[in-house]
Amino acid sequence: MAAPVIRIDSADDPRVAAFRDIRERDLTGRQGRFVAEGTVVLRMLAAHHGGRQGFRAESILLLENRVAGVEDILAAFPDDVPVHVVSQAVMDGIAGFHMHRGVLALGQRIPPRDLAAEIEALPERALAVVAAGISNHDNMGSIFRNAAAFGVSLVVLDETACDPLYRKALRVSVGSVLSVPYARGGSTAECLERLQERGFAVWGLSPAGSAEISKVEISARMALVLGTEGEGLPEAILGRFRTARIAQNPGLDSLNVATASGIALYQIATRGGFIDG
Amino acid sequence: MAAPVIRIDSADDPRVAAFRDIRERDLTGRQGRFVAEGTVVLRMLAAHHGGRQGFRAESILLLENRVAGVEDILAAFPDDVPVHVVSQAVMDGIAGFHMHRGVLALGQRIPPRDLAAEIEALPERALAVVAAGISNHDNMGSIFRNAAAFGVSLVVLDETACDPLYRKALRVSVGSVLSVPYARGGSTAECLERLQERGFAVWGLSPAGSAEISKVEISARMALVLGTEGEGLPEAILGRFRTARIAQNPGLDSLNVATASGIALYQIATRGGFIDG
Repeated sequence: MAAPVIRIDSADDPRVAAFRDIRERDLTGRQGRFVAEGTVVLRMLAAHHGGRQGFRAESILLLENRVAGVEDILAAFPDDVPVHVVSQAVMDGIAGFHMHRGVLALGQRIPPRDLAAEIEALPERALAVVAAGISNHDNMGSIFRNAAAFGVSLVVLDETACDPLYRKALRVSVGSVLSVPYARGGSTAECLERLQERGFAVWGLSPAGSAEISKVEISARMALVLGTEGEGLPEAILGRFRTARIAQNPGLDSLNVATASGIALYQIATRGGFIDG
Repeated sequence: MAAPVIRIDSADDPRVAAFRDIRERDLTGRQGRFVAEGTVVLRMLAAHHGGRQGFRAESILLLENRVAGVEDILAAFPDDVPVHVVSQAVMDGIAGFHMHRGVLALGQRIPPRDLAAEIEALPERALAVVAAGISNHDNMGSIFRNAAAFGVSLVVLDETACDPLYRKALRVSVGSVLSVPYARGGSTAECLERLQERGFAVWGLSPAGSAEISKVEISARMALVLGTEGEGLPEAILGRFRTARIAQNPGLDSLNVATASGIALYQIATRGGFIDG
């Protein structure tokens, strides 16, 4: 049951203060609090509000001409989540720039998930992805989108990976950051050791990998490790774990990490039966 | 042999007039003339300047602190391509905004390639991609990047697909727009008929496709058809040609077209032997 819609006529109204200067807030990196943009992400927030991962919607802000189009989504939020409606001028005043997106929500994720506990909770057959130092929010969002498509049970972030709840990562993920469980560990090596201890076969993806991705040995528990686009995975990691490559024409820049993750996950998921239905 | 470097001290200097207001020029959609940004794309322009596809560099503009890093690339251009060097202030004045990229070139592609002639010139074994109505420049760039990686001989653009030479598409492609042959045809159906007439097995990629992409019948000449992300390929096309899908968890937004194209091309290229070496 959704809350009644609250009309806001001033950008200075304290009820929408949390939405002010969204773009600058992004830069401050507030772990755990996030901005959900657009209908697709709002729908995912409604679906996962109050769920196991601890996401909660705090407040919703809509451009007046967008209300009718999202009524079914609003109905899925409990009535303690306020819904504010504004004109374009007030929206622009709140955002601090011309905001062409008319569907926004603020959310929180409390508490952060503990990596060891998340690994412990995984089923016997599970596919995990490790985002090792992924610093580009588009790439992070794409990795989550692919993880959702290919039955990934857990995304592991090392200590240097960027925040998947950042506005752009969340949008690029089409909201999958809210549906695919994830947790942050320490260094890449520590994350991988923890997975390996729990029976995961760890495979680093690298243009210099030794096995072709279509031929890697499938285990009941598989972990695919993705490095940054420029640097790739560090030698110390490539030397300690098994590695896979994606065949491609020689002499080119390697594939985009989003595309590479899609190809590798498709291979592992279809060969290992990690996709539902 | 590169031209000697020309120092430019005013944003109004007529020798750099063609670089003025780059961002607005982008919007005018000048087919055939393009802006190459960044070291990676500049290197590709040097490699393909004067080649079969008809690309030519017109002029280069560098931030003063970037010259040393690209000297080997400059040496690959003939000396009738002028190289201009500016301070950050002059660069910003030319661009009309703060330009953090310090490596720019203007290029031309003359003449446009004729689709029928390009198809005629293809080898007996060939993989083609058809970009049907792809309107997002990031997606177009990614499709070219994947095409280069997986041995595509020709990208066919239908009449509604966006310009791959647009600054952002070219950048996202890591310059592959300059290396992978492409040509524009008429409607999607006309493009596909032309390919089919020349012995191409045409496969539309769609979440509703009938064959799993890893199991499509491989022919010596394969054409993979990609539609827009929201709409997908039109029913009229899906009904007339064979279709393939990518297995994924049900109930989600379909994969990003860049990722989907990567997965499909990897499958076809490795199974059909379209990758070199």
